[in-house]
Amino acid sequence: MGANFRSDNVTGVDPAILQAIADANQGPANAYGGDDCTKGLAAKFADVFETEVTVLPVALGTAANALCLSAVTPPWGAIYAHEKAHVIMDECNAPELYSGGARLIGLPGQHGKFSVDTLATTLKQALRGVHHAKPSAVSLTQLTESGTAYSVDEVKAIGALCRKEGLALHMDGSRLGNAIAGLNCTPAEITWKAGVDLLSFGATKNGAMAAEAIVLFRKDAGLAEALEYRRKRAGHLFSKMRFLSVQLEAYLAGGRWLKNARHANGEAQRLSQGLAAVPGVELLSPVQGNEIFVRMPVPLVEAIEAEGYLLQPWENPEGSRQVIRLVTAFNTDPKAVDGLLAAAAKRRAA
Amino acid sequence: MGANFRSDNVTGVDPAILQAIADANQGPANAYGGDDCTKGLAAKFADVFETEVTVLPVALGTAANALCLSAVTPPWGAIYAHEKAHVIMDECNAPELYSGGARLIGLPGQHGKFSVDTLATTLKQALRGVHHAKPSAVSLTQLTESGTAYSVDEVKAIGALCRKEGLALHMDGSRLGNAIAGLNCTPAEITWKAGVDLLSFGATKNGAMAAEAIVLFRKDAGLAEALEYRRKRAGHLFSKMRFLSVQLEAYLAGGRWLKNARHANGEAQRLSQGLAAVPGVELLSPVQGNEIFVRMPVPLVEAIEAEGYLLQPWENPEGSRQVIRLVTAFNTDPKAVDGLLAAAAKRRAA
Amino acid sequence: MGANFRSDNVTGVDPAILQAIADANQGPANAYGGDDCTKGLAAKFADVFETEVTVLPVALGTAANALCLSAVTPPWGAIYAHEKAHVIMDECNAPELYSGGARLIGLPGQHGKFSVDTLATTLKQALRGVHHAKPSAVSLTQLTESGTAYSVDEVKAIGALCRKEGLALHMDGSRLGNAIAGLNCTPAEITWKAGVDLLSFGATKNGAMAAEAIVLFRKDAGLAEALEYRRKRAGHLFSKMRFLSVQLEAYLAGGRWLKNARHANGEAQRLSQGLAAVPGVELLSPVQGNEIFVRMPVPLVEAIEAEGYLLQPWENPEGSRQVIRLVTAFNTDPKAVDGLLAAAAKRRAA
Amino acid sequence: MGANFRSDNVTGVDPAILQAIADANQGPANAYGGDDCTKGLAAKFADVFETEVTVLPVALGTAANALCLSAVTPPWGAIYAHEKAHVIMDECNAPELYSGGARLIGLPGQHGKFSVDTLATTLKQALRGVHHAKPSAVSLTQLTESGTAYSVDEVKAIGALCRKEGLALHMDGSRLGNAIAGLNCTPAEITWKAGVDLLSFGATKNGAMAAEAIVLFRKDAGLAEALEYRRKRAGHLFSKMRFLSVQLEAYLAGGRWLKNARHANGEAQRLSQGLAAVPGVELLSPVQGNEIFVRMPVPLVEAIEAEGYLLQPWENPEGSRQVIRLVTAFNTDPKAVDGLLAAAAKRRAA
Repeated sequence: MGANFRSDNVTGVDPAILQAIADANQGPANAYGGDDCTKGLAAKFADVFETEVTVLPVALGTAANALCLSAVTPPWGAIYAHEKAHVIMDECNAPELYSGGARLIGLPGQHGKFSVDTLATTLKQALRGVHHAKPSAVSLTQLTESGTAYSVDEVKAIGALCRKEGLALHMDGSRLGNAIAGLNCTPAEITWKAGVDLLSFGATKNGAMAAEAIVLFRKDAGLAEALEYRRKRAGHLFSKMRFLSVQLEAYLAGGRWLKNARHANGEAQRLSQGLAAVPGVELLSPVQGNEIFVRMPVPLVEAIEAEGYLLQPWENPEGSRQVIRLVTAFNTDPKAVDGLLAAAAKRRAA
Repeated sequence: MGANFRSDNVTGVDPAILQAIADANQGPANAYGGDDCTKGLAAKFADVFETEVTVLPVALGTAANALCLSAVTPPWGAIYAHEKAHVIMDECNAPELYSGGARLIGLPGQHGKFSVDTLATTLKQALRGVHHAKPSAVSLTQLTESGTAYSVDEVKAIGALCRKEGLALHMDGSRLGNAIAGLNCTPAEITWKAGVDLLSFGATKNGAMAAEAIVLFRKDAGLAEALEYRRKRAGHLFSKMRFLSVQLEAYLAGGRWLKNARHANGEAQRLSQGLAAVPGVELLSPVQGNEIFVRMPVPLVEAIEAEGYLLQPWENPEGSRQVIRLVTAFNTDPKAVDGLLAAAAKRRAA
Repeated sequence: MGANFRSDNVTGVDPAILQAIADANQGPANAYGGDDCTKGLAAKFADVFETEVTVLPVALGTAANALCLSAVTPPWGAIYAHEKAHVIMDECNAPELYSGGARLIGLPGQHGKFSVDTLATTLKQALRGVHHAKPSAVSLTQLTESGTAYSVDEVKAIGALCRKEGLALHMDGSRLGNAIAGLNCTPAEITWKAGVDLLSFGATKNGAMAAEAIVLFRKDAGLAEALEYRRKRAGHLFSKMRFLSVQLEAYLAGGRWLKNARHANGEAQRLSQGLAAVPGVELLSPVQGNEIFVRMPVPLVEAIEAEGYLLQPWENPEGSRQVIRLVTAFNTDPKAVDGLLAAAAKRRAA
Repeated sequence: MGANFRSDNVTGVDPAILQAIADANQGPANAYGGDDCTKGLAAKFADVFETEVTVLPVALGTAANALCLSAVTPPWGAIYAHEKAHVIMDECNAPELYSGGARLIGLPGQHGKFSVDTLATTLKQALRGVHHAKPSAVSLTQLTESGTAYSVDEVKAIGALCRKEGLALHMDGSRLGNAIAGLNCTPAEITWKAGVDLLSFGATKNGAMAAEAIVLFRKDAGLAEALEYRRKRAGHLFSKMRFLSVQLEAYLAGGRWLKNARHANGEAQRLSQGLAAVPGVELLSPVQGNEIFVRMPVPLVEAIEAEGYLLQPWENPEGSRQVIRLVTAFNTDPKAVDGLLAAAAKRRAA
C-alpha cells in the first residue's frame, strides 16, 4: 500500500480539528484574539496544566521557540540546549534574530538528552563577566531529536539547577503530547511542577493544521506583556485568530491530543519492535514517543522504499549502511506499519 | 439585522477557500513547500501578473511587509512611506526587527497618498553620507490607510523616481484586489510595469483564512534566496505549507480574488453614497475600494450601533463628532448595507 | 589670521588633558577599567553631580547615546526626541542597532527644543497596545541642535511628565558643559534633580581627545549591569582604559570643563553680537552656548571665507542667502573672533 | 623588581606613538577622517601590504572583528572559527550584535589552530538549505589563543578552501605583528596572498594607545561602503579621528610595529625557554609570538608572584597545578624576564 514515514509533518489535519475550523466560520468575530475562542483558551490550558497560565497562540514551532527564548534571554545571554536540538540545528538563527543576538551553546549527551551533570559542569566552567555571554536560559526538547523523552526526574533536576543558577527553563514541546503519552505523567508534572518556566506547546505535528501555543507558567505580568509585543512585532499575531485558536481548542478537547499521541506512539512501538527483529537493523535510541532512529543496510532501505514506504535518511550513508528516521503520527494506518514490516521481512527472506 | 463593519478582518473565510483547505487534506504531502500545490503557485501568479515571479507564501501581512522591506534595505537604510502607512503605524517595529534597525520615514499627503513631488523633495533634502540613514526603499500601500488607491500613473511616477535614485519600490498590497477592482487596471499595470520590485500580496482580508504572498518581480536570484532564508529565520515557513498555498490557489482561481473585491467595493459605493446623503455626515476621502472614512455626529453613531451595526471609531471624538471607518468585505450582505442606511435614515428622521 | 569655526570637533586636545594622558603612561595598569583612575571616576562624578552615580567611559558620543537609549527602551519601544536631534538625524540608525529596532519619533519645536506640551499631546495621541511602538523614553539634547539650552524648569516639566507616563528620560549632553555654563545652574539641577535618568556626558567637543561618559543616575543595579554588558558587546570597552579615564578625570579636575565651556560661550557671545550687527545677517536662534546659527548673504560668506575663516553651511543655499553654523571652542582665540568680525565689517564697508 | 606579565594590554603606550599624538595636536583638522593623516593611511597600508587596500581605523579590536564579520556574513549565516577564538569566547556576542544574529561555530584543533581538514569536514557535514545557518565566513586568529601562528601554507590552504566554498576569510590580527615577526614572512604573504579577504589589524597590544584598523583587501566598493556605514552606525567613527590615525601612522612608520613585535617575541623566547627548564613546568604550546602558556605547580606560581611578577591564571587550578599565561610586550624589560626566571630558579632551589 505504501505510506510516508518521513515525518509527522507530512500528515494532513485531524478531521476533528478541520471540522472545528469549519465550524468557526460562522459570522464575524473580533480580530487579533478578541474572539471568544481565543479568550477562552487560557482557561482550557489551565485545566490541562492544573495552574493558571498565559497562552499565546502562534502558527509555527520555530516562532514559538524563538519568542520564548527571546523573552528570557538578554541579547548578550547564552542559552544551553542539546547540541542536536532543533533550536540549534534547524531554525536558521531564528533564536538569534528574535533575541537580538543571544548565543546558543550545544551540550553533548546520549540519545538527544543532556544530563543535569553536563549542564552543571558547563555552567561551572562558563567564564563570567562582561567579556562573555551571560548564562541565561536552558532549553529542553520533548521529544528530543533522538525520539527520547526527558523523564520527570530529569526535568526536575535540571529545573532545580536552573533556579539555583538563575536561569530560565524553556521546553520545546513540539511533540509534547507524544512525550507525555510515553512518560505516562501529567502535563503539570513534566512542565511547571518540574521547573519549566515557559513552553512551546506543539499541536501541528500531532493533528493540527498549523497551531502551537506559547504557554507561560511563570507569573510575571511584564514577561507576559513582552511576549505579546514580541509576537506582534514578529508578524505572528493573526488577524483572524479564531482559526488558530479553534485548532488548539479542538486539540485539547476531550484529551484528543493525548489520544492522538498514544495512537502514534503505539504504532511506533510496533514498528520499532518489528524492525529491531530484522537482521542488520540497529535501533539507535529507545523509542519513547513516535520517532524511531535505526541504522540499516542500504539494500534494505531500498527494498522498503520500493514498496512505497517513504523513509527519511537522517545522515549521510556510512558505507553500505544508512541511518533512517521513521515517524508515526496520529493518523498512521496500522496496516501501513504491517506493510512496511512485511516489506522488510520479504527483503530479509530474499 | 445588524452586521460588523469594523474591518474586513472580522470576516470568516470564503467558503470556496475553506473547501480548498478541506480538499487538500488528502494523504501525506511533502513539508515546507515541497508539495505540489506550493510548487505550482509561481506559475499561477505568473499568469495573473503576466511575468515570471518568485512567490513565497506567508500567513500574515505584517510578516510579508517586514520580510519584503528587510530584503531591499540595509540596516542603516531609510524607507519612505506615507506617515499613516500600516508599516509605520501598526506593525509594532516589525520592519525594524526584520531589517536589523532600518529607519521608516513618514511622508505627508492627502487621502493617505504621498505624491511623487513630496518624495522627490524629501530625497533631495535628505542628508547623505555615513552620518545619515541611507535612502533605500519606498513602500506604497494599496489601498491606502484612507481607503484610496494610487493610480497607475501615480505608481509609475514614483517607480521612475525610485529607479532613478536607486531605491527599491515595495507595494503593501494588503487590499490589492480592492485597489485593482477600483482602478480597473491589470495586476501587471499597477505593479511591475509601474516599477514595483516586490509586493506583499494580501488575501486574508478578502476571503482567505490567513494567507499572503511575497511576490518578487525583480529578477534577482540572490534576493530570492535571501527571502527564503529570511522567511525561515523569522519562523514563517510553514511545515504543512499546502494548507497555506491552497488558500492562495483558490483565491486566484477563476479570478475569485477580483470578484470578491468587486463585491466589497460595490457595497462600499452603495454604503458611502447612502451615508453621504445623510445630513451631518462628511465623507473624508474618496471611496476607491472597500473602506469608507466619514465624520458623523456621535448621536448618529450611537443610533446606528443601537441597531446592531458595529462601526470602528478611527480617532478620538472631536466634541460631538466622531471619525468612523466602515469596511465592506467579500461577504458583505447587501441587506446589511440597506439596514445600516435605514438605521441612519431613521435617526435622521427622528 | 584665519580660523576654523565649523565645529568644536575640529579642535585638538586641551593641553592639560593631553598632559594627563602622557602622565598616565607610567608602567602597567590593569586592563578594561581595573586601573585606579577608572575605579575612582564614579566618586569624582558623584562630587560633580552631588549624588551617587554609575559611570561608564566610552570614546564616542554616538556610542554613549545609543547605549543609553538601548538600556531604557525595549526593541518594540518608541523614543521621543526633537525632530532635529542628533540621535535622529546624525547617528545613522545607531539607536536602532543598539536597541534592537526601537523607533525614534521626532517632535517639532522652535530653536531645537520641544515643549512639554508637545510631548504631552504626542503621548496622549499615541496609539497604545501591541500594534504600536510602546512609548518608552525621551531624549533631550543639551545644547540643542539650534545651540539653545533647555532651562531647568523645562527639563523639570519634561521629567515630571516622563515619570508620570512611565518613560525614561535621557539627556544627550554632548555639549553639557556649554549648556550649564550658559544656564548658570549646577550639574545636579539640570540632570537628576530635574528627572534625568541617564546622561551622555560629553567631553570630546570641549577639550578631550575622545572621551564621553555614560552617567547613570537611576539607582538600578540591573540597569547598571546591563549597561556594562551592552558596552562590551558593542566593542566599546577599552583595554587600556586608563587613557580614556584620565581624560575625564582631567576634564573634571578643578572645574576645567566649565572653565573651557565659559570661554567658548563668551567668545560665542562676542561673535554672535558682532555678527548680528552686520546688516543682512539674521541670528536664527538665541545663543545660549557655543553655537551660532545665522542666515547671511552669500557674498558675505565668501568674503569671510576669503580671509581664512572657515564656516559651516548648515542647509542648502536659499537664493542669495545661506544658513551658517559657527562654533567656538575651549581654545578659540579671541583674536580669531575679532578677525572674523573685521572681515565681516570690511565686506560691509566695501 | 617585579613586572606584569598578565597581558600585553596592561602596558602603556610606545613613547613614539604618544609623541605622534602630541605632535598631532596642532591647530584644527577636519573631523571624521577628513584630516590629512587619515586620508594618507590607505597609501601607507598599501605600502606595507603591497596592494591597494581600504583602511578604516577604529579604536578596539572587538569592534574591528565584529564589523569585519558582519560585513561578510548575512544574519542567517554561520562563521567558523577555532572554538577558543576571541570572537567566540571573549567578545560577549559582539559578532551577533553587529551581524544581526549570525552564528559562530567553534572548530577544535590543537594549539589554538584548526586545520583545513577539520574545516573541510565540517563544511561537508554542514546541513544546507534554509533550515540551517548558511556557511558564510571563516575567521582565523593571528596569534591564536594558544600563542601559536598559522603558517603561510596553513592560511593558504584555508584560503583556497574558502574561495572554493564561497566563504569569506577574515583574519583577527590582534597580534598580527607578533605573528609575522615569528613567521618571518611578509604581511602580504600571510594575508591577501594567502586568501584573506579582510583583516582586523591590531596595534593596541603592541604599542598603540587604542588603535586598530580594518583592512579590506577584497576590491569591492559596495563592501567598502557598507563598512563605512557599519562603523558609523556602531558609534565607532571618531570625530577627532586624527588622534586615532596618527597612532597607526607612527605604528607603521619605519617598521616600528615589527620591531616592537620582534622585541616582545625575543623576550618570550627567553622567558619560555627559561621556564621550560624549571622542573615541574610544562610548556603547553609552541611559543611563536609573545604569549606563553605553561602548566606549573601552584607553589611555584605563588613564589613567583611573591616576588612581584604578576601572572595570569588561565583556567581553574587542577589540583596542585595551574595553567598560566605569560605575555611579553614591546616594552618588556629584559631584566624583568631575568628577574622572573631568577624567582623561579630560587623556588626550585628552595
